[in-house]
Amino acid sequence: MYKHKVQYYETDKMLVTHHSNYIRWMEEARVDFLDRMGWPYTKLEELGIISPVIAVNGKYKKSTTFGDEVTIDVKIKEFKGVKLKLSYDFVNQNGEAVFSGESEHCFLTSEGKPMMIRVTYPDFYNAIMETYEKQ
Amino acid sequence: MYKHKVQYYETDKMLVTHHSNYIRWMEEARVDFLDRMGWPYTKLEELGIISPVIAVNGKYKKSTTFGDEVTIDVKIKEFKGVKLKLSYDFVNQNGEAVFSGESEHCFLTSEGKPMMIRVTYPDFYNAIMETYEKQ
Amino acid sequence: MYKHKVQYYETDKMLVTHHSNYIRWMEEARVDFLDRMGWPYTKLEELGIISPVIAVNGKYKKSTTFGDEVTIDVKIKEFKGVKLKLSYDFVNQNGEAVFSGESEHCFLTSEGKPMMIRVTYPDFYNAIMETYEKQ
Amino acid sequence: MYKHKVQYYETDKMLVTHHSNYIRWMEEARVDFLDRMGWPYTKLEELGIISPVIAVNGKYKKSTTFGDEVTIDVKIKEFKGVKLKLSYDFVNQNGEAVFSGESEHCFLTSEGKPMMIRVTYPDFYNAIMETYEKQ
Repeated sequence: MYKHKVQYYETDKMLVTHHSNYIRWMEEARVDFLDRMGWPYTKLEELGIISPVIAVNGKYKKSTTFGDEVTIDVKIKEFKGVKLKLSYDFVNQNGEAVFSGESEHCFLTSEGKPMMIRVTYPDFYNAIMETYEKQ
Repeated sequence: MYKHKVQYYETDKMLVTHHSNYIRWMEEARVDFLDRMGWPYTKLEELGIISPVIAVNGKYKKSTTFGDEVTIDVKIKEFKGVKLKLSYDFVNQNGEAVFSGESEHCFLTSEGKPMMIRVTYPDFYNAIMETYEKQ
Repeated sequence: MYKHKVQYYETDKMLVTHHSNYIRWMEEARVDFLDRMGWPYTKLEELGIISPVIAVNGKYKKSTTFGDEVTIDVKIKEFKGVKLKLSYDFVNQNGEAVFSGESEHCFLTSEGKPMMIRVTYPDFYNAIMETYEKQ
Repeated sequence: MYKHKVQYYETDKMLVTHHSNYIRWMEEARVDFLDRMGWPYTKLEELGIISPVIAVNGKYKKSTTFGDEVTIDVKIKEFKGVKLKLSYDFVNQNGEAVFSGESEHCFLTSEGKPMMIRVTYPDFYNAIMETYEKQ
């Protein structure tokens, strides 16, 4: 599971982490998730696969602040070949839930056209399906 | 309506605005919305009213990039005295919808306790209700 | 002169603007400076001119915070055709100096090779020289 | 030595890390440096010691981008009891120098008054001096 230590520059004058940073940490955890799956995002980009975020949502349950260590659990929520939906659960160093979120992604060619990864990159498709089934 | 010019530092190597910035622009537009309502967030803080974000969501419809000018329309979606739900519609300089989002807020005292603003700050409560009804 | 309103997400738990944001505002003011010179950075990029930052420095004189309006005065400090050195003076809404900084830039082709803009884009070179002399 | 993995949201449309992030990584490395010294910044804040940045500078030697791992070496450059000057050397995963910078800090009470840490917190003063002499 991915760990992020809250940085000073991530806090705001409410004395806690600014809420926009959780969206960034979702990305950090997603990048790590792909690394573990054996399909790092740098590799996807080299292959010409672009995977933009098309939707996000998040619920803030408990504030975090400078020095806290947040552990993020990423799971595949839905995948039928076109859209990939991920869910994220954040807990602090005391095991308390601090945030939960979801992101939705599509797959595009570097020219911005939709890509059927099952057809174009079946190995990547299978890696996602395998992770999905095992989790 | 609030306008934000996309900055170079807000783009990423996908050549477009990083998705996390839309959450920040929602905040910029919200701050401006409170200013226009006559209840700037600085005034709320001076009065000891803290209004954290408890949920956000967003849908990315069309990418934006450096130099684009985004116009943001904020509306009150729901308010019954405890939670304030706002909606945001973003269009680019060509009038195309680029993003829509929502945020949810509660009101706390500076000690972090829930505040019934209808009771504690009826003028602020009335200002929200008036804006709600007029929009 | 360029104006920047300090955003909530730019503050930190010291209750003031996080120091890294001044470097970003230098960029905002630089982009605006090029716009006024008639050579917007988007145009430079279209022409294949890349102008990375090769050095920055800054002195923090007085803190700013959420809601402050910072006015930034950009000047050309040095330009002999290869490196462009800019200086920045930041004052707050009360006219007090809050920050001063400098940035240094070179000009590269989109392949990353040094570019003699006097030779390749004499019009751009002349626009810089003119601004330099008039200021 | 402190390590930072470059995040996607830290890149810009020049395809490399945005220059402002190096200033943030200097802070990350500084926080880690204080941790190793046995004087975490959270402890300083609890004691009522505020240590703002009063100056920064940096030279960009080689670009970094998403996925790179940057190792940062922090050293005390100067300390005579009032101002603390730190230097930072950044190398990438191939051992190449990518950035070097400096930051200058003073020590204030939580009311914003200058603090002679040698007098008020001699243990902290001694810890800095010891690190200084040993490096």
